[in-house]
Amino acid sequence: MPYSRDVSEQADNVIPFPTAPEERAPEPEPRLRDVLGDVLRDERQSQDRTLAEVADEAAVSLPYLSEIERGRKEVSSDVLDAIVRSLELDLAEVLERAADRLRSSEAPGMPRMSLLAA
Amino acid sequence: MPYSRDVSEQADNVIPFPTAPEERAPEPEPRLRDVLGDVLRDERQSQDRTLAEVADEAAVSLPYLSEIERGRKEVSSDVLDAIVRSLELDLAEVLERAADRLRSSEAPGMPRMSLLAA
Repeated sequence: MPYSRDVSEQADNVIPFPTAPEERAPEPEPRLRDVLGDVLRDERQSQDRTLAEVADEAAVSLPYLSEIERGRKEVSSDVLDAIVRSLELDLAEVLERAADRLRSSEAPGMPRMSLLAA
Repeated sequence: MPYSRDVSEQADNVIPFPTAPEERAPEPEPRLRDVLGDVLRDERQSQDRTLAEVADEAAVSLPYLSEIERGRKEVSSDVLDAIVRSLELDLAEVLERAADRLRSSEAPGMPRMSLLAA
């Protein structure tokens, strides 16, 4: 019996390990870039400004700003500074909001949606 | 007269533009990487741990950690997370301390040394 067929038959017999929803690993704690992105996006939206407007003022590309807001790209200190200025915030305020978000998401039993209402 | 000698004589006649201390540009506001580096270094030192110990636990090189602490290198979210864990802090605490530092350095007339006593 060829080796490849043997492997294939074994694979057919594999039963997926059952994973109940409550058995899943807890959500990983947000990283710096996730929480910074959330803070920047929320502030921009609360100012009713578009990605294009803020990106233009901060001299970053629109796709890059969008990825930063979604926590998909690391943001360098200089780029963060430019975005923070274009939002008329200061870095201390951004870091405080980021810390508050992390503290809220740590609170046991608090649904994550509550962050949206904050 | 050779060109080089001419330049040299001109250079001898240059009078440095006087700059009184109070005329200097204000210190640029600290960037994210500066203030994160300060927070991480202070916490490590307050725990009486060496760069080598923390770098080893966080699985980053000693020179890289040293540069992060001095604000000379950007720190990615994942590396920051590893360092924060090795210091037994959490990210929210680090961001709060960073915001506090920025607020303190903003306060007019407050000497920067006062941060060391905080």
